[in-house]
Amino acid sequence: MRAVLLNTGTELLAGDVQDTHLAFIARRIFELGLRIEERRTVGDGAVIGQALKELFARGDVIFVTGGLGPTSDDITRDVTAELLHLKLEENAELLESLQQRLRVRGIKWVASIARQAQVPAGAQILPNENGSAPGLYLKANINPDQQSPHIFLLPGPPRELQPMFEKSAVPILRAVVKAPPIERRFYKVAVMGESIIEEKIGNQILAIPGIELGYCARPGEVDVRMIGPRAALDQADKIVRDELGDVIFTSDDKTLEEILVKLLTDTKRTVATAESCTGGLLANRITNVAGASSVLLAGYVCYANEAKTDLLRVDPKLIEKHGAVSEEVARAMSEGARIRAKSTYAVATTGIAGPGGGSPEKPVGTVYVAVADNSDTKVRKLFFPSDRETFKQLVAQVAFEMLRRTLVANP
Amino acid sequence: MRAVLLNTGTELLAGDVQDTHLAFIARRIFELGLRIEERRTVGDGAVIGQALKELFARGDVIFVTGGLGPTSDDITRDVTAELLHLKLEENAELLESLQQRLRVRGIKWVASIARQAQVPAGAQILPNENGSAPGLYLKANINPDQQSPHIFLLPGPPRELQPMFEKSAVPILRAVVKAPPIERRFYKVAVMGESIIEEKIGNQILAIPGIELGYCARPGEVDVRMIGPRAALDQADKIVRDELGDVIFTSDDKTLEEILVKLLTDTKRTVATAESCTGGLLANRITNVAGASSVLLAGYVCYANEAKTDLLRVDPKLIEKHGAVSEEVARAMSEGARIRAKSTYAVATTGIAGPGGGSPEKPVGTVYVAVADNSDTKVRKLFFPSDRETFKQLVAQVAFEMLRRTLVANP
Repeated sequence: MRAVLLNTGTELLAGDVQDTHLAFIARRIFELGLRIEERRTVGDGAVIGQALKELFARGDVIFVTGGLGPTSDDITRDVTAELLHLKLEENAELLESLQQRLRVRGIKWVASIARQAQVPAGAQILPNENGSAPGLYLKANINPDQQSPHIFLLPGPPRELQPMFEKSAVPILRAVVKAPPIERRFYKVAVMGESIIEEKIGNQILAIPGIELGYCARPGEVDVRMIGPRAALDQADKIVRDELGDVIFTSDDKTLEEILVKLLTDTKRTVATAESCTGGLLANRITNVAGASSVLLAGYVCYANEAKTDLLRVDPKLIEKHGAVSEEVARAMSEGARIRAKSTYAVATTGIAGPGGGSPEKPVGTVYVAVADNSDTKVRKLFFPSDRETFKQLVAQVAFEMLRRTLVANP
Repeated sequence: MRAVLLNTGTELLAGDVQDTHLAFIARRIFELGLRIEERRTVGDGAVIGQALKELFARGDVIFVTGGLGPTSDDITRDVTAELLHLKLEENAELLESLQQRLRVRGIKWVASIARQAQVPAGAQILPNENGSAPGLYLKANINPDQQSPHIFLLPGPPRELQPMFEKSAVPILRAVVKAPPIERRFYKVAVMGESIIEEKIGNQILAIPGIELGYCARPGEVDVRMIGPRAALDQADKIVRDELGDVIFTSDDKTLEEILVKLLTDTKRTVATAESCTGGLLANRITNVAGASSVLLAGYVCYANEAKTDLLRVDPKLIEKHGAVSEEVARAMSEGARIRAKSTYAVATTGIAGPGGGSPEKPVGTVYVAVADNSDTKVRKLFFPSDRETFKQLVAQVAFEMLRRTLVANP
């Protein structure tokens, strides 16, 4: 079965409100074996009827959001009834509950509110626990003279739609949808390009019938997503693990910093950060994770050379000889931080984020990342000529991934 | 003129990624006199061609996002060329710059990358400063044998799309769209609630004919946006400045940290950060601004009490007596950081981000923020019972706004 989603509301098209319905509904119906094939967003008014009519042929289930309120531009209920040649009938029970709702809140009754008690003949009411407009479910071919899909009319505000969807729409969908069980697998990889990942796994996985494969790339990170029947996914999973193996840092949609905090916590180890070019991003990301306080002992943001010397005891002669952006200084920063914070590990970054500060030998984008433990210090040189924020993200990904591999290699 | 937007990407339909393009593009084109009439979201693959064809009749301008990358599911370029019967030609300059991009980064060339150098005959290239896939602009009726609207093919990642849109698409749109002159004013206010701002300016501004007024609230920050003819905006601007005055930190869409770095740089003053509960967020935000290296002398992330004592010379007895989350410790942290870094100012944060660590006297959300200069230290106590990341953002806003007001008061 195919589902489509129609979002209505001029405020969505104007960019005043960020729509969240697609993500919510798509995730919720996935496990029912139902997927959104297409989503449309239109304004208030007659366009809703036109879009709805076009979508009749596109889906077996249509979700419509918005346009169920009391004001004159709320016409979803009306155009749906008109399209299906169904009479709108006033529902006495709904009317009474609307009146009750206003009485309780001491709000004056306005005649237009009664529109929300109108129900297309034969439609099922979906109660609204957090607002006045109820949702409506019109089963497929509700008017036997006319082919139509299953239609759900849902309120626009997420805090009304979401509980209604969960309590009323999901049970109906469970009964309606007969889909072969389909599953989803998810993997995240840091510090490896999308095209290299595709080269490793793409053709092999696409050769398995029934698998849909997708990639989503962010700075320093790629999501690999596969959808299909379980047996095919198990086969694909083996390929992914054989080809990518340890570079997968999660198959559970966690962030790299969540994985690090968990690895450190589980083994009672600690870390300190010594940041020049990332300027606090490492510490900031780690401390976004609940429980970070027990693993991050200290963070040193030392842009200035004086701070590198004062905080991390980096020898000024080393800076003078090799420059602040050098393998030697990255190494000294990580070792200095580890000793000062008395932590198991320390990570250090020193580089040229730009736009200024580059030179022919060390152009903007040059960076050294170091990870120190009690016996060894690893340093990597990288080159990320990007805008400032992307540069910082890319460097943070490398630093975290180096630390993660060190942790995994020393369980 | 009418515009339509087509978002492509199975990750959007699956709910894995929250689409932000509609809101961004709608807001950006508003002042050009262009509005989005309809938006569609479809998955990767042949459906893109079908949707694009249907939308040809719906808009004078079509924006398409996504599907320009190197992998096999990136077919936007191909289906567009096919629909318009345009040949795809390999652009030698693009190919060279893609190769150069990879060489510079030391990334292995994979044959599929070359697809991104394919250009439909006659299309204009929109350079991508933050990624590999360029955007493409196909002017209306680019193939004279076939009616078609103005088509913009744009990359999926927002950090690639947004600067490209601003630099390359907006100038083209300005030339293409002929709309009556309308202007836009913009103000940002930190640490003041949306409803308080509305109470101060709302009715007065809405009484001016022709003004459209909007608010957008983020943690610790509200944008006020007005659109209308120049004379009306000048009248409204006076009201905004009379009522809000100094609490407006920019009318130029700058971030609070950009304003701080500029204020510090212009007066040759410096700052240090001492962060407990914000865990590096202050330093991270400051160092996102180009030129931060000359004003941020050092950042101390000291979650652990030992780090507060070691780095900032906070007396352990003070911590024992008042607790790490206290006015006294916030004060001592800011003063210790200022002395250690030899900076003009220092800001300090200490609080309970949660979810753990609260007590009846100091529940989760309790926080102290301090700003020290050479003669005085101001401390504020606040209460932000929120999720962890929102808490950190709210505290950072307070810290930055306290520092900004100190800077403005001492020019």
